[in-house]
Amino acid sequence: MSQTVNYGMVGGDVHAFIGEVHRRAIRFDERSRLVAGCFSASSEKKNRESGEKLGLDPKRVYATYQEMAEAEGKREDGIKFVSIVTPNVTHYDIAKTFLNNGIHVMCEKPLCFTVEQAEDLKRLSEEKGLLFGVNYSYTGYVLAKVMREMVQEGKIGKVINVNAEYPQEWLLDDLHPVEGQELKLSVWRKDPKVAGISNCVGDIGTHIENFVHYITGLSIKRLMAVTNHFGQPLDLNANIIVEYDNGANGAYWCSQVAAGTLNGLAVRIYGDEGSLEWQQEHPDFFKYTPRGEAPRLMTRGNGYYKEKAAAYSQLPTGHPEGLHVAFANLYKNFITAVLMREKGENADEIDFPRVTDGLNGVKFVHAVVKSAKNDSNWVTL
Amino acid sequence: MSQTVNYGMVGGDVHAFIGEVHRRAIRFDERSRLVAGCFSASSEKKNRESGEKLGLDPKRVYATYQEMAEAEGKREDGIKFVSIVTPNVTHYDIAKTFLNNGIHVMCEKPLCFTVEQAEDLKRLSEEKGLLFGVNYSYTGYVLAKVMREMVQEGKIGKVINVNAEYPQEWLLDDLHPVEGQELKLSVWRKDPKVAGISNCVGDIGTHIENFVHYITGLSIKRLMAVTNHFGQPLDLNANIIVEYDNGANGAYWCSQVAAGTLNGLAVRIYGDEGSLEWQQEHPDFFKYTPRGEAPRLMTRGNGYYKEKAAAYSQLPTGHPEGLHVAFANLYKNFITAVLMREKGENADEIDFPRVTDGLNGVKFVHAVVKSAKNDSNWVTL
Amino acid sequence: MSQTVNYGMVGGDVHAFIGEVHRRAIRFDERSRLVAGCFSASSEKKNRESGEKLGLDPKRVYATYQEMAEAEGKREDGIKFVSIVTPNVTHYDIAKTFLNNGIHVMCEKPLCFTVEQAEDLKRLSEEKGLLFGVNYSYTGYVLAKVMREMVQEGKIGKVINVNAEYPQEWLLDDLHPVEGQELKLSVWRKDPKVAGISNCVGDIGTHIENFVHYITGLSIKRLMAVTNHFGQPLDLNANIIVEYDNGANGAYWCSQVAAGTLNGLAVRIYGDEGSLEWQQEHPDFFKYTPRGEAPRLMTRGNGYYKEKAAAYSQLPTGHPEGLHVAFANLYKNFITAVLMREKGENADEIDFPRVTDGLNGVKFVHAVVKSAKNDSNWVTL
Amino acid sequence: MSQTVNYGMVGGDVHAFIGEVHRRAIRFDERSRLVAGCFSASSEKKNRESGEKLGLDPKRVYATYQEMAEAEGKREDGIKFVSIVTPNVTHYDIAKTFLNNGIHVMCEKPLCFTVEQAEDLKRLSEEKGLLFGVNYSYTGYVLAKVMREMVQEGKIGKVINVNAEYPQEWLLDDLHPVEGQELKLSVWRKDPKVAGISNCVGDIGTHIENFVHYITGLSIKRLMAVTNHFGQPLDLNANIIVEYDNGANGAYWCSQVAAGTLNGLAVRIYGDEGSLEWQQEHPDFFKYTPRGEAPRLMTRGNGYYKEKAAAYSQLPTGHPEGLHVAFANLYKNFITAVLMREKGENADEIDFPRVTDGLNGVKFVHAVVKSAKNDSNWVTL
Repeated sequence: MSQTVNYGMVGGDVHAFIGEVHRRAIRFDERSRLVAGCFSASSEKKNRESGEKLGLDPKRVYATYQEMAEAEGKREDGIKFVSIVTPNVTHYDIAKTFLNNGIHVMCEKPLCFTVEQAEDLKRLSEEKGLLFGVNYSYTGYVLAKVMREMVQEGKIGKVINVNAEYPQEWLLDDLHPVEGQELKLSVWRKDPKVAGISNCVGDIGTHIENFVHYITGLSIKRLMAVTNHFGQPLDLNANIIVEYDNGANGAYWCSQVAAGTLNGLAVRIYGDEGSLEWQQEHPDFFKYTPRGEAPRLMTRGNGYYKEKAAAYSQLPTGHPEGLHVAFANLYKNFITAVLMREKGENADEIDFPRVTDGLNGVKFVHAVVKSAKNDSNWVTL
Repeated sequence: MSQTVNYGMVGGDVHAFIGEVHRRAIRFDERSRLVAGCFSASSEKKNRESGEKLGLDPKRVYATYQEMAEAEGKREDGIKFVSIVTPNVTHYDIAKTFLNNGIHVMCEKPLCFTVEQAEDLKRLSEEKGLLFGVNYSYTGYVLAKVMREMVQEGKIGKVINVNAEYPQEWLLDDLHPVEGQELKLSVWRKDPKVAGISNCVGDIGTHIENFVHYITGLSIKRLMAVTNHFGQPLDLNANIIVEYDNGANGAYWCSQVAAGTLNGLAVRIYGDEGSLEWQQEHPDFFKYTPRGEAPRLMTRGNGYYKEKAAAYSQLPTGHPEGLHVAFANLYKNFITAVLMREKGENADEIDFPRVTDGLNGVKFVHAVVKSAKNDSNWVTL
Repeated sequence: MSQTVNYGMVGGDVHAFIGEVHRRAIRFDERSRLVAGCFSASSEKKNRESGEKLGLDPKRVYATYQEMAEAEGKREDGIKFVSIVTPNVTHYDIAKTFLNNGIHVMCEKPLCFTVEQAEDLKRLSEEKGLLFGVNYSYTGYVLAKVMREMVQEGKIGKVINVNAEYPQEWLLDDLHPVEGQELKLSVWRKDPKVAGISNCVGDIGTHIENFVHYITGLSIKRLMAVTNHFGQPLDLNANIIVEYDNGANGAYWCSQVAAGTLNGLAVRIYGDEGSLEWQQEHPDFFKYTPRGEAPRLMTRGNGYYKEKAAAYSQLPTGHPEGLHVAFANLYKNFITAVLMREKGENADEIDFPRVTDGLNGVKFVHAVVKSAKNDSNWVTL
Repeated sequence: MSQTVNYGMVGGDVHAFIGEVHRRAIRFDERSRLVAGCFSASSEKKNRESGEKLGLDPKRVYATYQEMAEAEGKREDGIKFVSIVTPNVTHYDIAKTFLNNGIHVMCEKPLCFTVEQAEDLKRLSEEKGLLFGVNYSYTGYVLAKVMREMVQEGKIGKVINVNAEYPQEWLLDDLHPVEGQELKLSVWRKDPKVAGISNCVGDIGTHIENFVHYITGLSIKRLMAVTNHFGQPLDLNANIIVEYDNGANGAYWCSQVAAGTLNGLAVRIYGDEGSLEWQQEHPDFFKYTPRGEAPRLMTRGNGYYKEKAAAYSQLPTGHPEGLHVAFANLYKNFITAVLMREKGENADEIDFPRVTDGLNGVKFVHAVVKSAKNDSNWVTL
């Protein structure tokens, strides 16, 4: 039936938590069907078990992503899109392979490691006329979309300052290594060969960059940064000052060693007519202060704001939606776009993070690392 | 395969939001398969469409729940449990019918309207040896389970006072009726024939009663209450003082006309060795104060508490889980119990709200209404 | 000079903290002069030392309050008012003595122990044409006055429900007595002869009663209560349901054994047009929700509310004022009233807590204790 | 008597709010006596009225600060210290004059405008053997002192990152000038001749610098900054990255145009063994997270922390102290130091902000302005 979409997944065997989150989120949308996968490249057993547990036809559980892309690309009932949830170092090759087989791609972030790779993927998806989504999941929160609409409507005027941060504490113990005990910072986050040029900025700093851009529409013109490695090969903490294309400044902080913080993406957007504040850990609430008035505690699902994005709500006000719903909203729009493209319609206006966002993320990471290495000089993006 | 469970649903067509929430929550568990339904008794079209959209065999989309119970009860591959998400007034008949056809039941709350009905369902499920769950969904939150375990471990000592409340604001406009404009309080909440003897206490007051009991293990010995109708046939607001079986007191407040509140279930449990505070709108956090120490801001998913219930977490700390996960946890345990029973195992220790909880809820509502009518005299439960 | 007021103090030697708080608060008003005192009745040394340290003429440091009242009442430059900060059991006699010597009185709360005493003081102050203030200090906070004005202006419409509480934790250890170690609950709080008929309700429950009345203008028509002694002679915890003269209900809770609470006077006033929320521990902020709108975080000192009471602010917004300023505002108005009365003007409209408020407090305590003893029956005030 | 201290004030007539705050704070200490003043240099009437209202001998109400310094310096019973609360541009000359007349000085911040002036005052006070305090009032909060002690004790280990900010909103309207209406940014904040080289950084940015230094003991080695003038001659907003002498980094933000903020000095200090968070607008609370444990909500006045600085508390826990008490603590220590010096004792260990802190503030402002003008290059302090 034309209103359903077959999809496949690379990575995310049933023992890994992130694949499950993606699949649950995709299943929020009745239009999707998981029909193919290469859930584990390293373990035939995990791969097979995952296929079984997920109720897949064993023929469509593939040993390699290459086989999968080729086979599915040829099938009449082949997958329309692939969700890539593998380690970062593999994104580029896998995404490229599916694009080359005519399959739309939704890829975990960070998109890839070099600007050249990112530009290559962008070029290729355009050439092939294929959709390329990047999983900047936090933009899927209803209130992210509402705040974005408010900025577009001019509710806070011209943006004049941004404060954004993403602190975590989970690597703090690594500053106190215990003999004979492994670091929490696994090899694939420490070794530049598999981790890329950055750990903390690449992993979570990019969410700041993307989220602020999503809400405000502003792009970074240049930035200067300090990073801190605390004895590790890659960064664990970074402070960054940015200058946007509208001339305003912003300050970004990300950290994996900040005691008492969890997964603290938080943005405060100050405009000349008001401000917005939001915290990822309390995603159903934001604070909106119109100039000269008292701050207002805004809640998802309430009737007192009229932004169209309010329609994304899936639960009544006061019933917490959580991250699964953010993922689901992202996939919902992506699936809508896939369906439109299958019908030959233009899906350019559909709201989901795209390969350009992924490219910007890679550029951001490279600029931060370059500035930090160069005594914090400004680096133009 | 023995590790999957076929289930059916009564009510919850694809245009109604609550059915979707249940289905998504059940699908968090890979072991479940929706195979049958009677999604709308009043609209053949909605029923059929729902079946189609959900990918069901049209033969298993039934016109009436009676047909469904009978047919599924007889099939070799019939449903093992039914999820009932219909209007409250119908719960009793539907649940009874499925029990009589040998099918386990998970029923939305409130279970039913009279104590006799509730006791009847309890008796019947026991006679038939069938599981009977009641959807007190908030007990599915991970931290509800963690707090319960902490109380059991004695972390706050003997409970000496409870403050619990569930305020909402959504019916406040009904205190200002506008000529020619319908009230938000729909007929089925106003007319005792379909709404039962209580509106506010029945709808949300019962969540307070159940949740406090779940966390503390305390049962209400007697209570006294005032309710406020503000011109409507049924209650919109209630204040209740309870006395527990351990001699301590508690105060409960529920309201649908409290400006500035959303879906504010909140409990504060004071023991002689410490206290616990939790709010449904921020379900991933609670405050724990050991006697003589500073309050601690506890978060779902962190390593500093060792309660076994922590294992229910599905996302890392700081990644909001929301209500879908609470529903999912409830169903997960229920499905586990169903599978155990199918194998002939005893599932009495599996943690999910049962028919006895539903019965206690009905008794609670009746006691509140009786006290309020009787000049707030104590009513023994 | 006619614009200054000489005053004296009974109790509050320089080693006791509360006398100092009163004196500092009074000194916020340049019009006041401390010129006489009987700071300690039991210790001549403490009395003398206090006089010296406070720079008083030794002749006006009296051995007994009786001498003081008599001598000051006769002096040309005698004190115009006395501030009584002695143990509760002594308030009645001392206040009476000063009234009988023609001196205005500001008395710590609770005013006294019996309704008869309170009515006697009321009658006497009226007969003598003297001002009689009672130190319900929390009504001195600027925002208490602003919220009161908002209620009077109809900003939240008719009050339909009140939630108010005053939990503390400081006596929790007394539930775990250690052999050979004194209880925190000193004798004068345990022995009905010096403590009156109630400990917790008398000490802090009365603040709830007074504060809610101050903000809303509502009076309690009747109430029902449970109290908990936890093995002590007097109450340590109480839950109370009240019915106001406008027909609405409210629930009050006070406790001295609530782990994790400090000095938690907090009120939530729900009207049919909006609501107000305020916490004593964050006195410069309140939440105001107009019906159908988002809650607003209101702050002392901001320009977006126009209530006249805003003029009480002594510091710019964001600069915490604290309890000293609340005391100071209370005394400021009292001093203004004293000056008006000295000039023969009517001071009935000046806003400070008066003997009637003290009388209402005593009635409230007696009603709670009576209800609690009488199986929580309603007691009419 | 040797245990009291006569003092005088320059500036702060009774119509100006800040003088009153200082006097009230000083009066918290029974040892102080206000005996002289030059409250207004521009208005003989205001000066005289202030003297009268404050009960001063008219001979000691001086027309100029020069006369005052000279006369009081010669009197047997002359003032021991002067509190300077005049406009910033005048601090240097006034302070110098009093030092030259042998009188200890407590000066409002910023100390002065140039590094040379600040060094001159430092040198002069040392030469004369006189105390020189600078009114960085926020360091007077009890919890500022407690947090400082905790850092010194190693409770958070080595500091690895600092986030500190001081946003206000009061000048936001100035970004929308209305024809014929004066800006809120008064002339003395706009005109470099009277405002110095910075507005926002000089006024509130310096509080960040001083407060972080006070808590952590860290000094800034170098910094880089962007400032925003938004069309005004001086800065209204600034983002700064600093590098401390221990190698760690920090990010500071100050603003006077941040909608929804009040007087938001807030610091978050991250160490390798824990963290501290504190907000000036809720000064009686802070959050302390030991590594690997849940964050603890610490409150002034509680028994669960044993830092010696807890002794500064003047009110029991839960009774808000506010800014007057912070001022009072600052003056209390200063008066203690004055008394020690009068007795010939060494007062170097007494904790109050000194001329060196004022000097560091001036250096900080100059470094920020220099970096901002120089394309944000690092500037070494």
